[in-house]
Amino acid sequence: MSELEEKTLKSEEIYSGKVISLYLQDVMLPNGKQSKREIIKHPGAVAILAITNENKIIMVEQFRKALERTIVEIPAGKLEKGEEPALCARRELEEETGYECESLKLLTSFYTSPGFADEIVHVYLAKGLSKKENAAALDEDEFVSLEELTLEEALHYIREQKIYDAKTIYAVQYLQLQEALGQK
Amino acid sequence: MSELEEKTLKSEEIYSGKVISLYLQDVMLPNGKQSKREIIKHPGAVAILAITNENKIIMVEQFRKALERTIVEIPAGKLEKGEEPALCARRELEEETGYECESLKLLTSFYTSPGFADEIVHVYLAKGLSKKENAAALDEDEFVSLEELTLEEALHYIREQKIYDAKTIYAVQYLQLQEALGQK
Repeated sequence: MSELEEKTLKSEEIYSGKVISLYLQDVMLPNGKQSKREIIKHPGAVAILAITNENKIIMVEQFRKALERTIVEIPAGKLEKGEEPALCARRELEEETGYECESLKLLTSFYTSPGFADEIVHVYLAKGLSKKENAAALDEDEFVSLEELTLEEALHYIREQKIYDAKTIYAVQYLQLQEALGQK
Repeated sequence: MSELEEKTLKSEEIYSGKVISLYLQDVMLPNGKQSKREIIKHPGAVAILAITNENKIIMVEQFRKALERTIVEIPAGKLEKGEEPALCARRELEEETGYECESLKLLTSFYTSPGFADEIVHVYLAKGLSKKENAAALDEDEFVSLEELTLEEALHYIREQKIYDAKTIYAVQYLQLQEALGQK
């Protein structure tokens, strides 16, 4: 709605990095006054809720420097420039887990932190998994440890705060909903 | 798990702002090699899934400069320094919607973007709503438009990408799950 819009008066690039860029913007508020906005630009990402033939969820444990701890997440990764999200999902699934999938379905897409960042995550459901021979490797600065969890185990991990991020909590709740609807 | 840990060799503050700060860190990877991490520090936030006595969800439409558009979200706001999340939830509910609530229950907490930010969002369920006289006002740079949606309307908004952020999509799916479980 246009009566809520904030017009950019000035946009200054503070930092441009490997993953994110930071802009400081002067904006005109709807009431004509001015304010500043701090904006992070991010290339976007995919995440993959991959279900094995034994009905387990594939998770990766990973050290997250921003949190100074490891957490357990569904596999995920950043979009490369111009990369189609579904292809990125197949690539990241292979790199992080060694699996390829027969079926891949977009469940949802969401902005993670709309108050300050334009990062969007596309969450896919992957089924029909098989181990790929000579699977592509992780990026050289990525280290992950694989786990396969039942839904009950994943819910336990949420209570223990081992699973602790938005995309993974969304994905586990999605499976709970499917189970409750009897559509598993 | 310690074998995944990345040790900080150097941390440089690139920017310190009103909402976020940016650090560039040199880290030692588990294999002894070095890499760089770009880290955003954020004070954390709360979000409130507020259900009216008519069983509608209170939403706020807000222009998000990072996205250059408005989206429809559950009420939310940043933690002030040292502020207890439940008190912050009551304050933000009052400021953004004019409502106070009888009951407030923590549903979950999640990191929004663990790959680059330490932002955590605590999501509360608020019930027993009543309009408060002389409710506290919004921050002077905040402009929102209120809506009350049924669950069906909220699901429609997700399909239309009017609802498009992690906390709100989580909250709507939470209500779907409660309905499916017959615990509404």
